[in-house]
Amino acid sequence: MINKLVNKIKKTEAPIVAGLDPTMKFVPEHIQKKAFAEYGETMKGAAEAIWQYNKAIIDNIYDLIPAVKPQIAMYEQFGVEGLIAFQKTVDYCRQKDLVVIGDVKRGDIGSTSEAYAVGHLGQVKVGNTMCRGFDEDFVTVNPYLGSDGVKPFIKVCQEEKKGIFVLVKTSNPSSGELQDRLVKGETADRPIYEIVGEQVAAWGAECMGDSYSYVGAVVGATYPEQGRVLRAIMPKAFILVPGYGAQGGKGADLVHFFNEDGLGAIVNSSRGIIAAYQQEQYAQYGPENFADASRAAVIAMKEDIAQALAGRA
Amino acid sequence: MINKLVNKIKKTEAPIVAGLDPTMKFVPEHIQKKAFAEYGETMKGAAEAIWQYNKAIIDNIYDLIPAVKPQIAMYEQFGVEGLIAFQKTVDYCRQKDLVVIGDVKRGDIGSTSEAYAVGHLGQVKVGNTMCRGFDEDFVTVNPYLGSDGVKPFIKVCQEEKKGIFVLVKTSNPSSGELQDRLVKGETADRPIYEIVGEQVAAWGAECMGDSYSYVGAVVGATYPEQGRVLRAIMPKAFILVPGYGAQGGKGADLVHFFNEDGLGAIVNSSRGIIAAYQQEQYAQYGPENFADASRAAVIAMKEDIAQALAGRA
Repeated sequence: MINKLVNKIKKTEAPIVAGLDPTMKFVPEHIQKKAFAEYGETMKGAAEAIWQYNKAIIDNIYDLIPAVKPQIAMYEQFGVEGLIAFQKTVDYCRQKDLVVIGDVKRGDIGSTSEAYAVGHLGQVKVGNTMCRGFDEDFVTVNPYLGSDGVKPFIKVCQEEKKGIFVLVKTSNPSSGELQDRLVKGETADRPIYEIVGEQVAAWGAECMGDSYSYVGAVVGATYPEQGRVLRAIMPKAFILVPGYGAQGGKGADLVHFFNEDGLGAIVNSSRGIIAAYQQEQYAQYGPENFADASRAAVIAMKEDIAQALAGRA
Repeated sequence: MINKLVNKIKKTEAPIVAGLDPTMKFVPEHIQKKAFAEYGETMKGAAEAIWQYNKAIIDNIYDLIPAVKPQIAMYEQFGVEGLIAFQKTVDYCRQKDLVVIGDVKRGDIGSTSEAYAVGHLGQVKVGNTMCRGFDEDFVTVNPYLGSDGVKPFIKVCQEEKKGIFVLVKTSNPSSGELQDRLVKGETADRPIYEIVGEQVAAWGAECMGDSYSYVGAVVGATYPEQGRVLRAIMPKAFILVPGYGAQGGKGADLVHFFNEDGLGAIVNSSRGIIAAYQQEQYAQYGPENFADASRAAVIAMKEDIAQALAGRA
């Protein structure tokens, strides 16, 4: 799947992942109205609204980008009905040949991580039948529990030819509280995120695709200097870069996350793409044409990144 | 809800939480057969089997214990159908007046943690209607993203009178890879878990019930020495203690997690209770009477802990 991701990035010339993180605030009123008319102001109504919203955006941008990243929390907030919409979204994107990165940030003790890995990437045995749950192509994984919590995901990835992105340095303002703490080393003191970055590189060395590993990392666009350091520590890891756009990351900040081959990173934008019509810049589209605004935002983001990469030494 | 938990522990004299972590290996054949006859060897069949299994165990132990802890991964492995069984289990336990600790280990950037908090503990706005998702009483939270990722849960807990347990020192063998790393301090170097423990104490100080805070901590029974240190760092935090039984923690290891008042900790056992009938000690019950074996295991665990607490200086 890492090879598919790399090939699709080359083909689309867009190292971009669209974050499908719908909240009711983003969903245009005409879609909400229609869904509520059918199912009422219920979880089912909300789930129908976000599904129709997602579908229109996917239909309008799938040819431009290699991948999508639905954030499962935005579906889980609507309970079981929301998770049905999550599943529909994953399945629909895969039908459109998009690589699906489930942003689930799971991670637990070994036997429990195994259950998550099976539920999101693999197959579970029911009687004598193998069944699939959510079936994403990649998921994000939290490393706080150590290698016990990560290796069950890697095992399933090996069997299924899928992949993971391990949280290394997250994009949020308080990520440094833990991740930047300096840890005593034999020769020098180093921040936690470097330690985790080294673990990612070590896990990934056994998990190579043609040019990149299918054990990748999450490093926020909001921390470009740390991105530069981590790029060097994990040369074969693909970096999933959240925080572009709404969270403050800019095109120029992104160059450090890429290798010399122009690959090695994929940049996420969520609100910036899916709620583009709510921004002044794309206001002319109006709520009725929200999916056209999303397409324009993808094209602008593609140019922003291409310019930044072209502009580096 | 922390007051309810404390009162129920006093009333039952059992600082015990039953981990409702069903896997197909634990579910007796007669229950599997019946579920598959109705729904086939499908996710729906699996979900029906684990729900019937849970229900029989809950019916047989609910009067002995204050709380249950369903591990959501064990349901998520069966996709949407599994999550419907999770919801049924949560709702049924609440009907039985059990405190429900959703072991979800969620945690993300602020806006995303808010969605998880809303989906598991709070209410989400759909049109002009407030709706509830999974509606547990407590959830477990991963601290890797820092306070941004934790505070949205605390905010919902304040509104809803619910609570969280933050992962501090987890029970698994590799937990030390990250959590035991020594961090440079002004006066001394200290492990990460102490830093997180101090954060839990600070967050919890603003969130007091009558005698304990509703911001608690997870510390594994497998690390009794760390438990002693963390007990002192977070005197007002309730400690959720996994790792008893199948993972190797013993009654004598548990005394360090409790305060002098005999409170302050609640010990989880999953396999040890729900799959008791598969252990030699309870084999006489047989698979048909698996729920009676679970009851016997709860009573034995209660005595083990009571003896350990009575035996301390």
